[in-house]
Amino acid sequence: MSLTVGILGGGQLARMMVLAGAPLGLRFELYDPAADACSGPLAPLTVGAFDDRQALADFAAKVDVVTFDFENVPADSAQWLADRVPVYPPPSALAVAQDRLSEKTMFQQLGIPLPAFADIRSRDELAAKAAEFGLPCILKTRRLGYDGKGQFRLRSEADIDAAWQALGAQVERTGLILEGFVAFQREVSVVAVRGRDGSFLAWPVTGNWHVDGVLSASVAPAVLSAAEHEAAIGYAQRVAEHLQYVGVFALELFCRDGELLANEMAPRVHNSGHWTIEGSETSQFENHLRAVLGLPLGSTRMLGHACMLNWLGAMPDPTPVLQQASGHWHDYGKESRDGRKVGHATLRDDDAGALADALVQVGLELDRQAQVAPAVHALRNG
Amino acid sequence: MSLTVGILGGGQLARMMVLAGAPLGLRFELYDPAADACSGPLAPLTVGAFDDRQALADFAAKVDVVTFDFENVPADSAQWLADRVPVYPPPSALAVAQDRLSEKTMFQQLGIPLPAFADIRSRDELAAKAAEFGLPCILKTRRLGYDGKGQFRLRSEADIDAAWQALGAQVERTGLILEGFVAFQREVSVVAVRGRDGSFLAWPVTGNWHVDGVLSASVAPAVLSAAEHEAAIGYAQRVAEHLQYVGVFALELFCRDGELLANEMAPRVHNSGHWTIEGSETSQFENHLRAVLGLPLGSTRMLGHACMLNWLGAMPDPTPVLQQASGHWHDYGKESRDGRKVGHATLRDDDAGALADALVQVGLELDRQAQVAPAVHALRNG
Ligand SMILES: Nc1ncnc2c1ncn2[C@@H]1O[C@H](COP(=O)(O)OP(=O)(O)OP(=O)(O)O)[C@@H](O)[C@H]1O
Ligand SMILES: Nc1ncnc2c1ncn2[C@@H]1O[C@H](COP(=O)(O)OP(=O)(O)OP(=O)(O)O)[C@@H](O)[C@H]1O
Ligand SMILES: [Mg+2]
Ligand SMILES: [Mg+2]
Repeated sequence: MSLTVGILGGGQLARMMVLAGAPLGLRFELYDPAADACSGPLAPLTVGAFDDRQALADFAAKVDVVTFDFENVPADSAQWLADRVPVYPPPSALAVAQDRLSEKTMFQQLGIPLPAFADIRSRDELAAKAAEFGLPCILKTRRLGYDGKGQFRLRSEADIDAAWQALGAQVERTGLILEGFVAFQREVSVVAVRGRDGSFLAWPVTGNWHVDGVLSASVAPAVLSAAEHEAAIGYAQRVAEHLQYVGVFALELFCRDGELLANEMAPRVHNSGHWTIEGSETSQFENHLRAVLGLPLGSTRMLGHACMLNWLGAMPDPTPVLQQASGHWHDYGKESRDGRKVGHATLRDDDAGALADALVQVGLELDRQAQVAPAVHALRNG
Repeated sequence: MSLTVGILGGGQLARMMVLAGAPLGLRFELYDPAADACSGPLAPLTVGAFDDRQALADFAAKVDVVTFDFENVPADSAQWLADRVPVYPPPSALAVAQDRLSEKTMFQQLGIPLPAFADIRSRDELAAKAAEFGLPCILKTRRLGYDGKGQFRLRSEADIDAAWQALGAQVERTGLILEGFVAFQREVSVVAVRGRDGSFLAWPVTGNWHVDGVLSASVAPAVLSAAEHEAAIGYAQRVAEHLQYVGVFALELFCRDGELLANEMAPRVHNSGHWTIEGSETSQFENHLRAVLGLPLGSTRMLGHACMLNWLGAMPDPTPVLQQASGHWHDYGKESRDGRKVGHATLRDDDAGALADALVQVGLELDRQAQVAPAVHALRNG
């Protein structure tokens, strides 16, 4: 296949797509506002703004199909490109996922349980809805939030003013949404893929732990009953079909007292699916490309148990991970910067207990006991 | 790790090394006489002859360590580079492996069984040694042979003149060697890796089938008794230690009536180890880089059974392979050319019978029944 895939966004997701797509014989063209985008060493990079129509037109002329590593590409740029070259996932799906209000409205329409939510236009509306939902609750920007940015947690009535002070100015630019706070026992995500022909597959549901709103560790399969597992994947399938989605996406869910509540979807390959590179027959990156190109989807079967640890800020010493029989290292080649996702590690084992032991060892040697602790607990206590 | 690895040779082996090394955070610089070397789209490529000292010096200045995708880099160029930058495997090992006579002499010294062989300097010596070894036997160039090129099979005494006509002119340039013909039941290879610290690991022994001297299919693990399996890996370890080898190499062996006879070694990642990408915990490409960089070696454990099919000349339709649950596709991005290695596929299954069924299906759909037949037979008849 001497096809060229264009990727809007040239970060680590694009990088891992390039690495998964090269064996399929694909070539890539990357597009990113940053000249030092970390996938740059692996494919030609156009540096341009996501609303630069001239640069986008030149880019479109070089590629057979366009996809995304970044979900906040302006939906009208995506649509404009789609009039020139096939774009997957469809810009309409991107538009829904970019706006927490339309996303949550869709979940509601599809009968997927979710926390209380309301569009917020003023401080008074915020006060009224906070009273209705009860505290705590969370005020978020409707658009452009990621990694927990653009969020304010209201713990008491006194926080209403602080929240409005922090985010009220965004009401025109991004919009605001208030969500009831879910005192969840766990967070999970479904990473799934839908082909151009409507075929649908999901990887085993993944359990996730966030620190300061940013993913810290994932374990697959998540600790869920078979019924919960099936329900979660069923929700993802409803979303995929409703959006006529093509490609990989993630549906994030809260588990509270055996109930699953939708949080949000990400219309792209997802950090909680990085373990699929070594942990399943076909990675999320390869299946995303297979879907986008109309190729048959690969099996999403996994063997045993996998744990992914995110590296934020700076890369740790790789040795403790590489010393583990099933330790795999992913350094995105980025400069260190506070809080930045610079890499991850995946450990895998047929046996949950052995994987927990390996994680304990890695946690000790890297002095990251707190990071591995919830994953170890989940693996040991089922 | 922001280290840069230089690779002499920019073919598919370099390409797969780049894909395996990028997750480790490595950068690559490639060096190849051909401007269209197929790893070019993935890393900067210097176009130069392997004896161009100026170009090699510029190349050496850009890299932290040098390795090979091509074993016939002149040994003196490799040594010259090694005086400037670390080079692994050691040029001395390359020199031995480049010459069938020194390679076979080494096997003999190490007590590794092998077919009869003799250095041949004249037509008369050829006639005398052919009489001594008995027919059939094989005349080969000592140096620069690959994919069965530079070989002549003598079936009757009448072939002596034809063989001398075909290869006699090479006696000065490459040297010649006569080998007794081995009426083997199977061919196998040990793909193994030795670290800078002397650690040694081997993947399960692989069974190989050649067509016209070129690898056509491989199955791992090979059908061998436990004792044969152990012996084969022991031979590889003797070679590795003797050469103070660093990196991945392959030892090719003939199996005849329960006896293992060494054929040759390849001082690099090897076509018969391509299945390790999906079929084992750590691929030969990643472990080669780990070895060369002095990192801990990754587990060579494999799960179930794997079969690799080589694509020669032109890429077939990927669909039948991609439709198999465990079908993986590797298109090297090369132009089609008669007999050229342009790609491969790997199929994997926990169950040998299920893998055989998948191969039969692929063989049928691609009209390549003959290519899959020996692998299917081995998987079904153990
Ligand atoms: N309504 C809620 N109740 C409880 N916790 C929440 C709620 N909303 C968000 N959180 C917590 O904050 C994390 C980040 O929130 P969310 O997924 O909405 O933000 P994001 O900016 O899209 O983050 P990411 O990009 O990491 O997915 C969630 O994974 C969860 O841990
Ligand atoms: N002495 C022998 N007896 C029987 N068959 C042989 C002998 N030597 C070579 N062959 C056959 O020819 C094939 C290629 O030979 P050999 O490995 O020496 O060549 P090569 O050019 O190095 O090939 P490659 O690069 O594929 O390893 C062997 O794998 C084997 O099938
Ligand atoms: Mg989220
Ligand atoms: Mg050979």
